[in-house]
Amino acid sequence: VVQTAVSGAMIGKGQYRHFMQKEIYEQPAVVGDTLHTFFNPLARSIQLPDFPFDLANISRLTIVGCGTASLAGMVAKYWLEQEARQLVEVDIASEFRYREAPLPDNGVSLFISQSGETIDTLAALRYAKEQGQKIISVVNVPESTIARESDMVLPTLAGPEIGVASTKAFTTQLTVLACLAIGIGRAKGTITPEREAELSSALTEIPSRITEILNTDEIIRKISADVSEARDVLYLGRGNLYPMAMEGALKLKEISYIHAEGYAAGEMKHGPIALIDENVPVIACAPSGPMMEKTISNLQEVHARGGQIILFSDEEGVARAGDIAKHSVVLPKVDPFVAPILYALPIQLLAYHTAVLKGTDVDQPRNLAKSVTVE
Amino acid sequence: VVQTAVSGAMIGKGQYRHFMQKEIYEQPAVVGDTLHTFFNPLARSIQLPDFPFDLANISRLTIVGCGTASLAGMVAKYWLEQEARQLVEVDIASEFRYREAPLPDNGVSLFISQSGETIDTLAALRYAKEQGQKIISVVNVPESTIARESDMVLPTLAGPEIGVASTKAFTTQLTVLACLAIGIGRAKGTITPEREAELSSALTEIPSRITEILNTDEIIRKISADVSEARDVLYLGRGNLYPMAMEGALKLKEISYIHAEGYAAGEMKHGPIALIDENVPVIACAPSGPMMEKTISNLQEVHARGGQIILFSDEEGVARAGDIAKHSVVLPKVDPFVAPILYALPIQLLAYHTAVLKGTDVDQPRNLAKSVTVE
Repeated sequence: VVQTAVSGAMIGKGQYRHFMQKEIYEQPAVVGDTLHTFFNPLARSIQLPDFPFDLANISRLTIVGCGTASLAGMVAKYWLEQEARQLVEVDIASEFRYREAPLPDNGVSLFISQSGETIDTLAALRYAKEQGQKIISVVNVPESTIARESDMVLPTLAGPEIGVASTKAFTTQLTVLACLAIGIGRAKGTITPEREAELSSALTEIPSRITEILNTDEIIRKISADVSEARDVLYLGRGNLYPMAMEGALKLKEISYIHAEGYAAGEMKHGPIALIDENVPVIACAPSGPMMEKTISNLQEVHARGGQIILFSDEEGVARAGDIAKHSVVLPKVDPFVAPILYALPIQLLAYHTAVLKGTDVDQPRNLAKSVTVE
Repeated sequence: VVQTAVSGAMIGKGQYRHFMQKEIYEQPAVVGDTLHTFFNPLARSIQLPDFPFDLANISRLTIVGCGTASLAGMVAKYWLEQEARQLVEVDIASEFRYREAPLPDNGVSLFISQSGETIDTLAALRYAKEQGQKIISVVNVPESTIARESDMVLPTLAGPEIGVASTKAFTTQLTVLACLAIGIGRAKGTITPEREAELSSALTEIPSRITEILNTDEIIRKISADVSEARDVLYLGRGNLYPMAMEGALKLKEISYIHAEGYAAGEMKHGPIALIDENVPVIACAPSGPMMEKTISNLQEVHARGGQIILFSDEEGVARAGDIAKHSVVLPKVDPFVAPILYALPIQLLAYHTAVLKGTDVDQPRNLAKSVTVE
């Protein structure tokens, strides 16, 4: 008998209407549990396990996953580039496994899979291994095939995820990848002790910040009434929130069957802005800061064309946007590094409530399987 | 007075109803002209100009563009990896310019822009230059700012493109990038003379293959009646046709205002398949070959869920798909290397005819500008 740690995760739906809702609400606990595996809050320092290779000397980190897991990889690319000056490539597994990608000497490949059994991701891992890459995996099931075939496993402690649309698996994947980015940055000397302490504070606060955001549930539920009437939705973000725009769109697609698409805010004017009219809500993930000015100017174009804007931002950002947003959700102001983890929450809640209003089968959306073990 | 070569391109709409239609029909000529700049058909050999750096020793090629130009870059990544074993990264300019990307020693950055004035692409170029990268540009206006600030300019000979939705600029960009991929492969010794002769034959045939495909215009016009009634459309492709699925979706979005989205066929089951019902046509770019079997199994899932399939393939592929496709367009069977250039054509024609049926302003779609010189 193999016992799997379920720390922070309950069995059964408890007082929740759906497993997905329960799993959203478990995030303060399971993100905290995952964080404490790699993080010493007293020392304010990341403590990674010993790797069988030198983290300071990775020529390129190749990150591969499917669906939501690949979007966690995209966020990690922003983190690793900015904090660790690490070259990173991200790809989806179904493409990576067949495109005969050249992989560099001294390269490391990292595979992300909740189940650890995703067939395309496993095939991609085996290809990378044959090419002489060292293998890291981020999985939620430490006994899984992907974990067993890796040189190093960084587990997420999300506990069993029942809802088909990934929520707590995603945020715990991000938590692990954030710790890895900081660990690589420290090994390479790109992160000063001061910056590590800053990032550590920001990470430590995540569970309580998530709890704060869960308190916006009722506001988001009200907004979902508008979204549930839309047939098409655009999500926009910049920088490390661009992958979150894609995740927001994916989540809405999966469970509400609304055709949502995620875009880098700066790409709007190169095509998708032609779609905008009063029937296509535009949801922006845009915390205050220098990038917000750019996003505001993209949103003004949307507004001028009759588009309804829903803004996820902090108090300062919501004030800055003023009247152009029809709805706003005020999120805590945080270090931009951790914003993707926190912006995952309103995205999940909005998709959840929209799906409930539409009466879809939230935990078992049509056509989808939890663990994709066929091509 | 500076004279710009317009080779093969006419001034005015001639007998065509729209500039876009004229520009689609100019492609055999302008792709041929562009090809002959870099290709000696008698020697069956690519002849690139002398580069001020060693093509055999590029640590990583970073390709940046916006909209359709970035999708040309994505195709080039497949080519460069497979034929030249060259490490490549592709990014959209609005993200690249702000994400403080680490760039490797001995790296080359390549910028793609029809006008040569796209503001985000120019800013990305300047960032790369500051980081010590050598700069190549692929532009349609050799006097442009991007051309002037490059170490090497590889011009497209598309002539003036008036339609806002890029057609001949895109296929000439692909033509240039194909020649560059072969040139780098030859410099690195990854392409044998036999393979170069094979690729050369395939390239030489492109203009006449494009003419053949233009003969499917009437079939595609009929199919567009179905597409014009859809509000949402998915495009699917694998390998070097995955970016073409994205381009197909972008083209349809831009001029018909239908919400189309491009997906890697293997990613369907990780989310977007939940969207599929009888109201969402699925358009697959899937030539026959080993990858087609994988795509067929993705399409069978679509078919089982009531989705209407439109298949772009060759005779063998259309036969293989059998009854699952509602409509098929038979394209010539070609070396998989050149397929993206040819599959651009049915994509353009379908978007064009759909937009005409919907009565949109084809050459000047709402909200879009031809050359994006603001952020």
